[in-house]
Amino acid sequence: MSSRKSVADILPSVSERTPLAPDAMETQLSRNTPTGPDFSHLASHCAHITPIPSQSYIERQDALARTLRSLNASAYVAEPGASAAYFANISSSHWHLSERPLLLVVQPITDEHGETRANVSVLTPYFEQTRAKLLPIPSDAGVTYTAWPEDHNPYERALSLLPELEGATIYVDGNVRTFVTDGLQKAAPKALVSSAPVEVRRLRERKSTEEIDILKCANEATVLAIRAARDHIKIGMRESEAGQLVTSALTAAGLKGGFALTLFGENAALPHGSGTNRVLGKHDFVLVDCGGSLHGYESDVTRTFALPDSVIPLRYQALWGIVHAAQQTALEVAANGTITSAVDRAARKIIKEAGYGEFFTHRLGHGIGLEGHESPYLVGGSDDVILTGHTFSDEPGIYIEGKVGVRLEDCFYIDDYGVAQYLTAGVGAPATGPWTP
Amino acid sequence: MSSRKSVADILPSVSERTPLAPDAMETQLSRNTPTGPDFSHLASHCAHITPIPSQSYIERQDALARTLRSLNASAYVAEPGASAAYFANISSSHWHLSERPLLLVVQPITDEHGETRANVSVLTPYFEQTRAKLLPIPSDAGVTYTAWPEDHNPYERALSLLPELEGATIYVDGNVRTFVTDGLQKAAPKALVSSAPVEVRRLRERKSTEEIDILKCANEATVLAIRAARDHIKIGMRESEAGQLVTSALTAAGLKGGFALTLFGENAALPHGSGTNRVLGKHDFVLVDCGGSLHGYESDVTRTFALPDSVIPLRYQALWGIVHAAQQTALEVAANGTITSAVDRAARKIIKEAGYGEFFTHRLGHGIGLEGHESPYLVGGSDDVILTGHTFSDEPGIYIEGKVGVRLEDCFYIDDYGVAQYLTAGVGAPATGPWTP
Repeated sequence: MSSRKSVADILPSVSERTPLAPDAMETQLSRNTPTGPDFSHLASHCAHITPIPSQSYIERQDALARTLRSLNASAYVAEPGASAAYFANISSSHWHLSERPLLLVVQPITDEHGETRANVSVLTPYFEQTRAKLLPIPSDAGVTYTAWPEDHNPYERALSLLPELEGATIYVDGNVRTFVTDGLQKAAPKALVSSAPVEVRRLRERKSTEEIDILKCANEATVLAIRAARDHIKIGMRESEAGQLVTSALTAAGLKGGFALTLFGENAALPHGSGTNRVLGKHDFVLVDCGGSLHGYESDVTRTFALPDSVIPLRYQALWGIVHAAQQTALEVAANGTITSAVDRAARKIIKEAGYGEFFTHRLGHGIGLEGHESPYLVGGSDDVILTGHTFSDEPGIYIEGKVGVRLEDCFYIDDYGVAQYLTAGVGAPATGPWTP
Repeated sequence: MSSRKSVADILPSVSERTPLAPDAMETQLSRNTPTGPDFSHLASHCAHITPIPSQSYIERQDALARTLRSLNASAYVAEPGASAAYFANISSSHWHLSERPLLLVVQPITDEHGETRANVSVLTPYFEQTRAKLLPIPSDAGVTYTAWPEDHNPYERALSLLPELEGATIYVDGNVRTFVTDGLQKAAPKALVSSAPVEVRRLRERKSTEEIDILKCANEATVLAIRAARDHIKIGMRESEAGQLVTSALTAAGLKGGFALTLFGENAALPHGSGTNRVLGKHDFVLVDCGGSLHGYESDVTRTFALPDSVIPLRYQALWGIVHAAQQTALEVAANGTITSAVDRAARKIIKEAGYGEFFTHRLGHGIGLEGHESPYLVGGSDDVILTGHTFSDEPGIYIEGKVGVRLEDCFYIDDYGVAQYLTAGVGAPATGPWTP
C-alpha cells in the first residue's frame, strides 16, 4: 500500500502510468514468462550510496529550531509525510494518516551551553503508542512521546507540550490536513497557528551535499535504465511492452516505486497518454518519462529518442533540437539569485522564437527531493528566489496534437558556486541528439 | 494505486493488514497454485444492489446549497476525496491529489422558481482540463469548469467564481490540505475561509435509504465471507493462510479493496498483530476483522470465533459473553437524540462491571460510509448528537496481553423511528456465540 508519488512534472495522476509490478507478481512473472532482458549490470551503479545518517537528522532538527527562534515561533508541527520524513524520518510509509492524528512537534530550546537546540516530541494516539515508539526517529536528547487517550482532545494534548500559548506562533507544514490545523487553532485561541513560511520551507528545499549525492545517483541510474531499455525496444513493439522494459531496468538499478510513462509518435503529444497502447512505427519518436526513488529521494528523467533504424522526419528532428536548446538555456539562466519565473521565461522564449510557443503547454519544472514534485517551481508568475542547494527538473516540451510530442527532462541543482549543474551529468547527460539519449 | 482506507476501528494503518492481491496477480496465482475453496456462491448476495443514481447526487448538491444559504455562506470547497465523492462523484481514485489543486466549488443560487439550487463548478489545472471534463460529475444545470493556467494563482481563479468576496463565508471540507485553505484565505483576505460546520458535515454523515441499502449488503456480504472462510480454516493453519481465505471470500462476494486482519490466540490481544504469523492451536480463538467496499461504501465486521473442534477455556468463553453483552447494550442505548459518548460509556460500563474495564483500550466505534472511519465517533468526551441515518461500528473488545483478545463488531444505523438496527441483521447477525459467528 505504499503511496506512490506523482513524479513527472506534467502528470499529476500516477494512475495513468505503467506501474511497477509488486514484488510477488514480479517473481510470479519471471517464473512463468520467457526471461526478460538482463539488466543486472545496473545494480552496481548506486550500490555505494548510503541513506541519510542519524546525525544529519539531528542537524536538520537543530537548524529548524534555530529558524523557529529567529522567527520568534514556538513550535513546528507536521503530520507523517515528506516534511516529517526530512526532520524526523517519519514518512507516510512509516505511518499512514488516519483520523487519529500523529504529530511531529519540534520546539526550540536552549541547551546548557546557551545553544538553540531542537526538542522533538511526537503526539500519538494512546492506543498506538507502542507502535509509535518503534518509529525510527533519530534524536540527540531523545524523543518525548505524548499519548492522547481516545476520550481527550489530541490538540490540547499536543499544545500542552508548549510552555506558553498566549501570543505564541505555531507553524504547521502546508500538507497538514485542515481539520488538524483547525483543531490546533481552536485548542489555542490566543496563539497564531499558520502555515510554515519560506524560511522553514527552505530548510528542506535546499539540499545538502549528501542529499545531492543521492539525487545524482538516482537520476544517473534512471538515465542508464532508459538507455538499457532502449537497446531492447524494437519497431513493432507496444507502448506497454516498452514501459515494462523501462520499469524492469529501474528496478534492476535499485530504484523503488519506479514508474514509466512510455508514448510513441503522436501519442506523446497527449501528455497523459492516449490509452491506446500504440505500436511503434519506423517514423515515430519514443518518449519515456520515468523515475524511482533511492533512500527516499526521487528521480525524474524524460527522453524522446529514435531507435537505430528509425527514420524520423527532419521537421520532428528540428523540434527535438528546439526543445534541447530550451533545456540548455534554462540551465544557463538558473543560478543562485535568479527568480524562478525567469528560468521558465528563458526556456519559453527559445521555443516561442522558433514558432512553437503555443505548443509548450506546461511549466518548465518543479523542485525534487523527498517528493517527486515539491516547492519551489519553475513557473511563470512565481517570484521564488533560486539559492544554492535548490534542485529542479528542467523539462521543456513541444506537443502538437495528432502529430508529435517532444519532451526532454534532466534535473539540476545549484552548486556551492551558485551555478546550475545537471544531476545526470555523471553519465554524460543531457541527451545530445535523438539517437544519443 | 487505489488508496485503500483504514477501516477497522482500531487499525489506523492498513499496512499491517493482509491486502487483497491485485487482479493480475490473482489470475496468475489461480493459474499456478492448487485451486482455493470455491466461494462463488457469495457473488449473488449483492448482485442486485445498484450504485447511487445521478439524481441523488443532484439532490445532495441542492441540499448542500440550502444548508449553505441557511448558514449565510457563499460556497463550499472540497478536494477529491470522500466529501467530493458524496456531492459530485469525485473520489480520490477518480482524481489523485497533486500539488496542482483541483477543487469542487458548490454555491447556492436561486432558480427561476425562487428555489435555492446548487451551482457546481470545478477548478482544474489548465493543463488537465481535458481530463477534468471527463470526470463523471452528475449535475442538473451543468458543471462550470474553470481552468487555471500554470502561471496564475489557482485560488484567485477559484474565488473569481463568487459574486462577492467581502464578508463572504467560504466553507472548506476538513480534509482539504492546509496549503489550499491558506491559499483561499490569502486570495480573499476579506472573506472568512473556515472548516465546514456540523450542519454541512451531517449531510454526508446521515445516510439515505439507498445508502443504507448498500451498506447493509456490503456488511452482510462481509459476514457471509467470514462464515464461508471459517468452513475452511483448520487447526494448524497459519494466520496468513486464514487471512487469504477471508480476502478471497470478500473478493468472491464482490467487495473491492478487501482487507482482513486475522489473529490467533494471544496475538488477538495485540490489536495490530504480532507480526509472528502464528499457527492456530486447539485452544485458540480466531479473530477476523475485515471488510471491503460496495459502490464506494465500506463494510467493517469483526468476529472472534472457535472452530467446531476447538476447545476454548471457559474463562475465555466468558470474556466472549461479556463483549457480546457490551455490544448489545450499545445497540440498545444508541438512538435518535443520544449523545455519542453515552453509547461508548454504556458499553464500557458492562465490561468494567465484569472486571475488565482496563482491557477495553479503545473507543467503541466510528461512523462508516464512503470512508471506513468517518465522523461522528462513539468515543468518550464527544458530545455529538446521534440522529436518524447515522451509521456506526459497535465494536467493544477485551485485550489481555499475552493471553487472549476478543472483539465483536457489527455496524448499525439509526432507522426512521430513531432506533438502532444492525446493518448485518439480514444475515442473522450479530454473532450469537463463539461457535456461531
